[in-house]
Amino acid sequence: MKTEELCYEADGLSMIGHLAWDETATTPRPAVLVFPEAFGLGAHAKARAERIVSEFGYVALACDLHGDQKVFPDLGTMMPVLTALRGDIARVRARTRKALEALLRRREVDASRVAAIGFCYGGTLAYELALAGADIKAAVGFHSGLQVSAPQDAGQIKAKVLALIGADDPGVPPEDRAAFEAVLRAGKVDWQMTLYGGVVHSFTNPDADLLGKPDFLRYDAVADRRSWQQMRALFAEVLGESPTS
Amino acid sequence: MKTEELCYEADGLSMIGHLAWDETATTPRPAVLVFPEAFGLGAHAKARAERIVSEFGYVALACDLHGDQKVFPDLGTMMPVLTALRGDIARVRARTRKALEALLRRREVDASRVAAIGFCYGGTLAYELALAGADIKAAVGFHSGLQVSAPQDAGQIKAKVLALIGADDPGVPPEDRAAFEAVLRAGKVDWQMTLYGGVVHSFTNPDADLLGKPDFLRYDAVADRRSWQQMRALFAEVLGESPTS
Repeated sequence: MKTEELCYEADGLSMIGHLAWDETATTPRPAVLVFPEAFGLGAHAKARAERIVSEFGYVALACDLHGDQKVFPDLGTMMPVLTALRGDIARVRARTRKALEALLRRREVDASRVAAIGFCYGGTLAYELALAGADIKAAVGFHSGLQVSAPQDAGQIKAKVLALIGADDPGVPPEDRAAFEAVLRAGKVDWQMTLYGGVVHSFTNPDADLLGKPDFLRYDAVADRRSWQQMRALFAEVLGESPTS
Repeated sequence: MKTEELCYEADGLSMIGHLAWDETATTPRPAVLVFPEAFGLGAHAKARAERIVSEFGYVALACDLHGDQKVFPDLGTMMPVLTALRGDIARVRARTRKALEALLRRREVDASRVAAIGFCYGGTLAYELALAGADIKAAVGFHSGLQVSAPQDAGQIKAKVLALIGADDPGVPPEDRAAFEAVLRAGKVDWQMTLYGGVVHSFTNPDADLLGKPDFLRYDAVADRRSWQQMRALFAEVLGESPTS
């Protein structure tokens, strides 16, 4: 596998994404955008991008979120930035669209087979990219908030949507699930939602346990494995099975 | 593959199940009970049992529901029988437990690796068997009602529960999903629930379209494939991968 820090501009920021690909591939490969948790692009999203390469043979771009690969150290410093961002549809869409454009400029990528995934707010960004009408085959969110900036645009969604949620996630309450269902139903979207019983927020990230709030944020190895498997099944359906699988 | 009509008594009825297995297997294999739709044991559940053998190498028993492999021809004749049955926990449990016992008497079966699945009311029966505390590894329901006879017994459930539901199924409304979630949460069950957008009842059964009620009963090839895949992933987790897969 090869990796490279990939620079692109978005929303006035200098983004530094983390691109990974199989340098032995002889033809353009399917590709996946990986949006990180709201803290910013760190080890978790980069590792997932690399797994997508090693397990499926796709190209993957772990996307920068705050510019210069900035990672906020705690909720206190991150939340005001997130709050300002998430309500501003133009800025949100710029950050997702520019990442997609940067990925599509790469010769390693088959532009007809691209998907977006994300963790926590990063999954919301995958949904936002789909809502913007981007030509992506799938949008997958792991423990991601379901409040999107422009629900009225659901009719533009071309992607198949997969929401993977801890049933006890305080950040994604049942009323948000119901509202998201209604949005997708109105848009006649091909969507799936899986709930994992006894599971809360951040279930894919072992570092969540370091924050000491197990009723809200907690790693769950079983839900991590099951949700990854479900993503993989959708990828097999819309991107094609990889030669390495 | 070999098949055999397997006779057993349950709830005062002469049940005729349809057993299928790989006669070339040299060791006991994982096994799956397949409970049919409320109409009774017909071609659909038998075919699914045989797929479990051919695709996964397990043993499978398609279970009789009404005795003598009786199949009701329409809702009008079936519903009164179903209504009388579903409220009677002793009768419901007899029909499921006796099927399990019949399966476990077979030398082809590894009794430590057994699961139950079902379609429509058959999935409810898989949940009922789990609620009775049966030693099964998984209970999977496809477009199955979530109202069970003894929700207070959820603490007895040993099985991992997987509910696969059309998000627009009029027979499984959101309030039933919420109530079932609460039951499983109270029982500290390992559970998953997947909703398929734009999908209604009977999505695994092409014959559903013959009933002419597409807003209620409709085959959906995509949801059929996805839900089977999800069942397979859970089987791989709890029963072990099969030699034929």
